Amino acid sequence: MKSSIQRVKAIVFDTFGTVVDWRGSIIRDLSAWGECEGVKADWAALADKWRGRYEPEKDRVRTGEIAWTNLDELHAHALDQVLAELDLEALSVDHRRHINRVWHRLEGWPDAVEGLTRIKRRYVIGPLSNGNVALLVNMAKHAGLPWDNVFSCELFRHYKPHPETYLGVCRLMYLDPAEVMMCAAHNGDLAAARAAGLKTAFIPRPTEHGPGQKTDLEPTQDWDVVANDVIELAERVGA
Amino acid sequence: MKSSIQRVKAIVFDTFGTVVDWRGSIIRDLSAWGECEGVKADWAALADKWRGRYEPEKDRVRTGEIAWTNLDELHAHALDQVLAELDLEALSVDHRRHINRVWHRLEGWPDAVEGLTRIKRRYVIGPLSNGNVALLVNMAKHAGLPWDNVFSCELFRHYKPHPETYLGVCRLMYLDPAEVMMCAAHNGDLAAARAAGLKTAFIPRPTEHGPGQKTDLEPTQDWDVVANDVIELAERVGA
Repeated sequence: MKSSIQRVKAIVFDTFGTVVDWRGSIIRDLSAWGECEGVKADWAALADKWRGRYEPEKDRVRTGEIAWTNLDELHAHALDQVLAELDLEALSVDHRRHINRVWHRLEGWPDAVEGLTRIKRRYVIGPLSNGNVALLVNMAKHAGLPWDNVFSCELFRHYKPHPETYLGVCRLMYLDPAEVMMCAAHNGDLAAARAAGLKTAFIPRPTEHGPGQKTDLEPTQDWDVVANDVIELAERVGA
Repeated sequence: MKSSIQRVKAIVFDTFGTVVDWRGSIIRDLSAWGECEGVKADWAALADKWRGRYEPEKDRVRTGEIAWTNLDELHAHALDQVLAELDLEALSVDHRRHINRVWHRLEGWPDAVEGLTRIKRRYVIGPLSNGNVALLVNMAKHAGLPWDNVFSCELFRHYKPHPETYLGVCRLMYLDPAEVMMCAAHNGDLAAARAAGLKTAFIPRPTEHGPGQKTDLEPTQDWDVVANDVIELAERVGA
């Protein structure tokens, strides 16, 4: 194990993209549901358009345009717009609610559960995710993610990459920033974690956004650990 | 399963006394440590005196005498006074810190891990405890408690039995109060949970306070479930 990470006691994970395959899960879940309910749609287009509104929605909170609003609510707001674009305005409130809850039903990447289970033996593990508490707890139940605790940005009322999210974990756990490692498939998330003093681990997820992904294919800084997946991360951190 | 609890989706647990044997754990942990470190003390007296200051310490927060202060800090404040009473003022800062952290190293009652593991298959489970996040996460690692999430009163900045603690869980989880059940060995905790609309489960722990305990030996209301331990609770809730 590298000496720079020997003080690490807790490892927190970006969730959407890093631990769970949001795009594949949404397409599979809603395709099956649409089949049963007789709802026809281009579910891949819905997933992509919906995620396209992810940063703009959080920016409404970050800029102060709206008061703190959790991700379930931002998702619901964005979904209404996406459904309108896809000529699906006729969907009922119950159907919209079911679709919005698909983020609670995401599946882990194939290596996630095994890797996390190993890492948990030696470290405190949790998501540090923009997802709200209910979303992350329900997702963990659904996908079998063995978190010790859910560190949702909802607890800190700031979205990543605000420093209060990374430092919030440290404060709640009585750990120095150098005792906490952030793992993400996104260089920007890690840059903010490093700026706050945390250790960093990069895992590429080159198909997070589907075929033709152009972002985050490679580490852009010398992160403390670079691993191909969560199982390899477990090896690198001695778990 | 009783019809009154059929809507329950999450079960939250009082921790000190209900899930973990704080008194026995403190005595065992500090006796062994004192032996190694050459610190002689009446550890049972320390445990009892320390716990005797538990309500008065929280009352300082409840009454507004001091701003929100988490339990690790209240414990440290009380410990200094208890050590003075026991003629142990000479203990170093490091020793005091180690003793204060004994609350992070408590052990479950013999039925706790098996019972919780069963209940977790069907319900979201977590502590709803006055303990702070670090304390509860570290305790869960130490005792093997398989929580889905730690619902610490630290998140709500109120100590039980303030209604915001029980309702805080419901809000974070998007559940109605009737979809959440509070399990405790303390009738007062359950009375407050019921007043907030939650379902209730009582488990007696007649030796929580050692031999000669006089409180909470019996249920004082018709709680939704009464069980002898967490394993029996699992049976009563169909898990």
